[in-house]
Amino acid sequence: MKVLAILYNGFKAAKAEPRLLGTVENELGLRAYLESQGHEYIVTSSKEGPDSYGLTDVCSQTDILITTPFHPGYLTKELMAKAKNLKVCVTAGVGSDHVDLNAAVDRKIQVLEVSGSNVVSVAEQVMMSILLLVRNFVPAHEQAISGQWQVSDIARNAFDLEGKVVGTLGAGRIGHRVLQRLVPFNTKELLYFDYKALPEEAEKAVGARRVEDLKEFVSQCDVVTVNAPLHEGTKGLINKDLLQHFKPGAWLVNTARGAICNADDVAAAVKSGQLRGYAGDVWNVQPAPADHPWRSMRNPLGGGNGMTPHYSGTTLDAQQRYAEGTKKILQNYFENKPQDPGNVIVGVGKYESASYGQR
Amino acid sequence: MKVLAILYNGFKAAKAEPRLLGTVENELGLRAYLESQGHEYIVTSSKEGPDSYGLTDVCSQTDILITTPFHPGYLTKELMAKAKNLKVCVTAGVGSDHVDLNAAVDRKIQVLEVSGSNVVSVAEQVMMSILLLVRNFVPAHEQAISGQWQVSDIARNAFDLEGKVVGTLGAGRIGHRVLQRLVPFNTKELLYFDYKALPEEAEKAVGARRVEDLKEFVSQCDVVTVNAPLHEGTKGLINKDLLQHFKPGAWLVNTARGAICNADDVAAAVKSGQLRGYAGDVWNVQPAPADHPWRSMRNPLGGGNGMTPHYSGTTLDAQQRYAEGTKKILQNYFENKPQDPGNVIVGVGKYESASYGQR
Repeated sequence: MKVLAILYNGFKAAKAEPRLLGTVENELGLRAYLESQGHEYIVTSSKEGPDSYGLTDVCSQTDILITTPFHPGYLTKELMAKAKNLKVCVTAGVGSDHVDLNAAVDRKIQVLEVSGSNVVSVAEQVMMSILLLVRNFVPAHEQAISGQWQVSDIARNAFDLEGKVVGTLGAGRIGHRVLQRLVPFNTKELLYFDYKALPEEAEKAVGARRVEDLKEFVSQCDVVTVNAPLHEGTKGLINKDLLQHFKPGAWLVNTARGAICNADDVAAAVKSGQLRGYAGDVWNVQPAPADHPWRSMRNPLGGGNGMTPHYSGTTLDAQQRYAEGTKKILQNYFENKPQDPGNVIVGVGKYESASYGQR
Repeated sequence: MKVLAILYNGFKAAKAEPRLLGTVENELGLRAYLESQGHEYIVTSSKEGPDSYGLTDVCSQTDILITTPFHPGYLTKELMAKAKNLKVCVTAGVGSDHVDLNAAVDRKIQVLEVSGSNVVSVAEQVMMSILLLVRNFVPAHEQAISGQWQVSDIARNAFDLEGKVVGTLGAGRIGHRVLQRLVPFNTKELLYFDYKALPEEAEKAVGARRVEDLKEFVSQCDVVTVNAPLHEGTKGLINKDLLQHFKPGAWLVNTARGAICNADDVAAAVKSGQLRGYAGDVWNVQPAPADHPWRSMRNPLGGGNGMTPHYSGTTLDAQQRYAEGTKKILQNYFENKPQDPGNVIVGVGKYESASYGQR
């Protein structure tokens, strides 16, 4: 079979650090395995061009496509129509919104991801992002490295997480882990918004209260963290209209998918101080252009920007997990063994995951 | 009585934000109260000069001195000898190492602090600092705001906290709270080093193991967090010699007191990569000079610096607590009521706290 992987270029870093498995250079550590099984393995970072990654020729003969959320190869309906041999798409990581899932259902292309591979990584990134926004870390660090010392300029916008109301939009594998990690912080209240309730025991263990109306949910939160997949129901969900229902001066963390937020509306809210800050590592376009508004936005007191490139799920620990998970998925496929049900987004001709918006 | 407070200048920020109570401008919110009781209240930021804060004239008539750890007015033995009326020193915050405690015992000057006022603030800062070092936040954020996108350069030195060994040097009010907050992060192990063991129940609740030998303790930790007071037994404790016993590439967080670490030795360890990173908001001199080595140090991969000016215990939430706590201490003193025992470092002629190194 022909296996194609779209990964990001690691350049020197990947040559120096073999644990950077998710790079073109280190090929998810799959070459020896795939070639020993008689398969052909093509690895590239190219994903631009008229057919999303300009790989129509290669893709047309590909049986198995491996992509990542960090450097997403957008698998459109049009590209699928040309990829006549494509049977399986594997996301080395979590989040398969770069694949047209409805088209995959129609074409009987399976879509799998390594569901457990980075839930902890992202939950930790959420905790870090909440703390550094609430505690106003970035302006403080900027003073430290630039030779300044003016504590009042930092402290005037620094708070404790204790006593605040924190809510997660989405209480799935990541959102639930975020709630668990928030428990010892003595927040005033933990809230969640989701299309279904947590199991009673899990809800009780984290002491979280479900709010069923989205506007009511955001209006009660000092901190909102987004932990939901991107699909037709969540795209652009956090926009100017919804932001008006946020508490004035609330903090927003989004490590889920950039396109869940309207980029311009969020940047405007930070600049006006309506949001005290926004942090996250997901962008509506990746790599983000150099002039993306989320790079330069600042609140009126000079802080409130906690952005990073999309890397939270690609720590060296996570790379090991998603490389191993990808291999396991391929082994199951080649050996005709059942897949871990948690990894199957689209089975042969039907959705298997409730996390993505069915038609 | 004459009450003197040494606070930091808040300038414009303090005028715009009345919750910046710990500033010269906002005077801990004590003026109305003190004047209504017939006391004189002098507030200044001056703390330089031959007698530590050049306030010998004022201090010589001071009955009660209020200082903070953020802008410490060093109360030396020599200054105490001149401050003939001085009866009480109140630290608006936690940490009274800027007072010569032995001299205070000899001169029967009481030393009090607002013990609970910022333990949570600092414990949160520790959690933030651990996460941002382990997850390599600073270089990632620098890419985001400077228009870059090279995930491999970030990911090559980014890890998850899960599965790591984290140890606190000091398991008192702050260290214990750090351990509590670490519990849901699924660390490989939680360790602590302290002169006494945690109560059995508390130890069990956080699942931490005490290591009695300091070198053995640091040699087992991926992350070391310092949560101990500064006294003769901890000054310069983390130096070149002890650093050689750390795990290669460990992370070190110090939000306790800068002088517990040897500044040059720590900077050298970060630069060589022996330490993967160092974060904290306490410095051996405060304000730190513009050329302090902790401002510019970087590990060989360009990260590992998580420094901020000393502000973790002076969030707006903490300022409210320590301003209220200072007032309560003054009220108790004026009204001859007993002080909260947890707030008394030095009583009349004797140490009351076990946290500071007795003679």
